[in-house]
Amino acid sequence: MSVVEIFKAAKASSSALARANSNLKNSALENFALELEGNIPKILEANALDIQNAIENGVAAGLQDRLKLDQPRISSLAKAVRLIIALPDPIGQSVDGMTLPNGLKLQQVRVPFGVVGVIYEARPNVTVDISALALKSGNAVLLRGGSAAQNTNRVLVELIQAGLAKAGLPASAVQTIDPYGREGSVEMMQARGYVDVLIPRGSAQLIRTVVTESKVPVIETGDGVVHMFVDETADLEKTVPMVLNAKVQRPSVCNALETLLVHQDIASVALPKIAKALEASGVTIHGCEETLKLVTGVPATETDWETEYYSLDLSVKVVADLDEALSHISKYSTHHTESIITENQSNAERFLQEVDSAVVMVNASTRFTDGGEFGFGAEVGISTQKLHARGPMGLRELTSTKWLVRGNGQVRD
Amino acid sequence: MSVVEIFKAAKASSSALARANSNLKNSALENFALELEGNIPKILEANALDIQNAIENGVAAGLQDRLKLDQPRISSLAKAVRLIIALPDPIGQSVDGMTLPNGLKLQQVRVPFGVVGVIYEARPNVTVDISALALKSGNAVLLRGGSAAQNTNRVLVELIQAGLAKAGLPASAVQTIDPYGREGSVEMMQARGYVDVLIPRGSAQLIRTVVTESKVPVIETGDGVVHMFVDETADLEKTVPMVLNAKVQRPSVCNALETLLVHQDIASVALPKIAKALEASGVTIHGCEETLKLVTGVPATETDWETEYYSLDLSVKVVADLDEALSHISKYSTHHTESIITENQSNAERFLQEVDSAVVMVNASTRFTDGGEFGFGAEVGISTQKLHARGPMGLRELTSTKWLVRGNGQVRD
Repeated sequence: MSVVEIFKAAKASSSALARANSNLKNSALENFALELEGNIPKILEANALDIQNAIENGVAAGLQDRLKLDQPRISSLAKAVRLIIALPDPIGQSVDGMTLPNGLKLQQVRVPFGVVGVIYEARPNVTVDISALALKSGNAVLLRGGSAAQNTNRVLVELIQAGLAKAGLPASAVQTIDPYGREGSVEMMQARGYVDVLIPRGSAQLIRTVVTESKVPVIETGDGVVHMFVDETADLEKTVPMVLNAKVQRPSVCNALETLLVHQDIASVALPKIAKALEASGVTIHGCEETLKLVTGVPATETDWETEYYSLDLSVKVVADLDEALSHISKYSTHHTESIITENQSNAERFLQEVDSAVVMVNASTRFTDGGEFGFGAEVGISTQKLHARGPMGLRELTSTKWLVRGNGQVRD
Repeated sequence: MSVVEIFKAAKASSSALARANSNLKNSALENFALELEGNIPKILEANALDIQNAIENGVAAGLQDRLKLDQPRISSLAKAVRLIIALPDPIGQSVDGMTLPNGLKLQQVRVPFGVVGVIYEARPNVTVDISALALKSGNAVLLRGGSAAQNTNRVLVELIQAGLAKAGLPASAVQTIDPYGREGSVEMMQARGYVDVLIPRGSAQLIRTVVTESKVPVIETGDGVVHMFVDETADLEKTVPMVLNAKVQRPSVCNALETLLVHQDIASVALPKIAKALEASGVTIHGCEETLKLVTGVPATETDWETEYYSLDLSVKVVADLDEALSHISKYSTHHTESIITENQSNAERFLQEVDSAVVMVNASTRFTDGGEFGFGAEVGISTQKLHARGPMGLRELTSTKWLVRGNGQVRD
C-alpha cells in the first residue's frame, strides 16, 4: 500500500466517523481500553524491541524513559482513554444561530475536521491520547510518531483498529504512516485534499520544519520560553513556591519557567530567598549583572534570554519596572505562558491585557498551562499560534464548524 | 522605506490598536467616513488615473466597472464604514471560563490577531471594507490590492491614516504594500513574526499561490463550485425562483450556482420549467445526456463539473437519487455552499449532515452565503477551509483568543 492509499483510506473513513454518534464512538474507545488491558504482554514485547534499539543507538536515558511502557503505564493509558470517554461530545453542538428577517434560520454547529495528521516524537502515550481525542471528536487520524517508538506504536494502532472494528467503525480511521519514514511525513505535508489539518508536536525544529514546509493547514504547537515577573508588591511567601514549582517540578516540558524577571525594588529581598530554594533543587542561575550582585550564578548572555533550557537552568534579570518587564517579554517570549506575581491589582490587569501570549497568569505557577489541568481530559498539544486554537488543545480544538441554513424558498433581492 | 520596515511599523502599531477601546476605534472609523465624504474630488482624480490605465491596458469592461468609483459609490463606502461602526466590538468578549477545584479562575477572551495581511484584486471597496473590519476588531492591517487600483488605494489608505491620526491612533495601523509590487507580496508571505495571518481574496490561482507559498498562517477563501440538488419532492413553485436567483442574480460571484443536480423522478417535469426561466435570462445549459433529452443545451464534459463559470452558464445533471447527488457533490464541490430543494424532511436533514461544506442549505438560494446577508456588516471573504473560520468572515473571524488565569499563589501538585 502506498502512503497515498493510506491517505485515501483515511479520507474515506472520515465520513463514517463524522456521522458516528457519541455512543458508537465511546464504544470504540471502551473496546480500545479493553484491548490495551488485555494485550499487555504483546505491547511490552514490542516496547522491549524499541527500548533495545534505543539502547543500541545510544538514545539518552531521559528519552528512553519517555519511550518505556510497563504494566502501570499501560493501565494509565487505558485510564486516559476512559477519561476521554467521559467528556462531552463536541460534535453537533451549536456555536451560534440566528433567524434572518426573511425567515431563514441559520445555525452554526461543530463538525469534525475530517482527517487530522499528527507528527510527534517517540512517546507511546501521545499515540493513545491523540487517537482517543481525534476519534471522540469524530476525526480520522494519521499518525507519524518518532521512529524510535515504531514497534510500540504499530501494536497500539492495531489495538485501536481492533476497537474500532468491534464497534462497527472503519479501522482505517486510525492509521500510522511510520513505515514510510521521513518520505511519508513529507508526503503528508503536501496532502492537500486528504489531510484537513496537520499538528506537529515535539521539538522546536520539528515544528518549524512542518510550519514552513507544509502545504496543508498547520496548528503550531509550542516552544515555551516562559516568563515570570516578580513585581515590586509580590508576596514572597507565595512567590518562592510558585517560582520553584514553575522551574523544578518538571523542567523538561514546555510550560516550565525559563526566565525570571524581578522588579529592582524587591530584588535585594526576593532574589536571595528564591535563589536559596532553587539552589537546593539543583538549579543553575544565569543572571544579569544586577542579579549576580545578589546571588550566585553564571553570567547570562543574549542567547540565554531566548533559550528554552528544558533543564534545571534559569535565566534571571532585574528590571526597572513593569514596563521593562513587558518589553523584555515582548522581545523574547514565544507567546506560550507568562505569569506576574503581584499584589497590585492594576499591574495585574495591565499584564493580563498587554502580554500577547496564549495563557497569561496572575499569581499562579506557569505549569498550569496544560489540557489536563484545564479539564480537557488530555491534550493534543499547546497552540502558540493565533489561528483557530490558542493554548491547550482538547476536543473542541479538533473541530471545525459549518453553517446550516433552513429556508422555505427564500431568494436574495 | 523597505517593505520590512512597513511590516515593523505595522507590528509596532498593533499593540496600540489592541488596547484601543470601542469608542476610540469607532471615532477613527467615523473620521475615515468623513474623510471619504470630504475628499470626493481627490478620490475621483486618483480613480480616473487607474481607469485610464485600465483602458490603455485593455482591461475587460467588467473589471473596469469593479474598479470604478463615482460619487454614489463613495457615499456607499462611507455608509459601509458606518455599518461597521454600529456592530458590537468583539474584543474582550468572554468565550469560555471556569474555576478550577484549586481556585484558579480561567477566562478565555477574544483578542485581536495583531497584524492581518490581505492580498486581493483591484477593487477599491475591498480596501475600505477590510480596513474597517480590521480596525474595529483591533488589528493592524497590511494591504496588497491589485496593481490596477493602486492610485485609488493609495488615496483611500491616506484617508484612513488621517482618520486614525485624528483619533490619536497610529497611522501605520493601515498601510499598503502596493508600491513593492509582487516582491512585496512574496515578502509578506514570508513575514513570520510580523504578520499573524494572511488572507488571500480573489481568483482561484491567487489563492492557490498564497496557500502553497505562504509561511505565515493563511485563511483560504474561496472558489465556489456551488451545487443545488432538486430532490424528488421539490416544490416547483419555489424551485424555479430559487434556481434562477442562485444562477442569474449575480453570476460573477463565488456563491452563484454552477451545477444543478435533478432527481430522475422529477426531471421530466422540473427541467423544462427551470430551463425556460433560465433561457429567458440568457443562461446556457451544459447538460448530461439525460438532461439534453429534456431541454436544450450543450453536452457537459468532465471539465464542466469542476468549473466555476462566473458566467451565465450552468452544468446540469440528472441523478438517480440523493445518494448519487451526495456523491457527485463530494467529488466536485469546493466546499463553499450547497443547497437541497426538497419537501422531504429526512432527506433535508441527511443533506445538512453529510455535505461537507462551509454552508449547507435547505430550500434557499445559495446567494445567501454572504457576510452582509448573515448580518456581519461586511465580509473579509468566505473561508472554505476548516481551520479557524468557515463560511463568511466578519469581525469575530478576525480575532483570536487568549486565556487569562487569576490565582492567589497556586502551584501544581
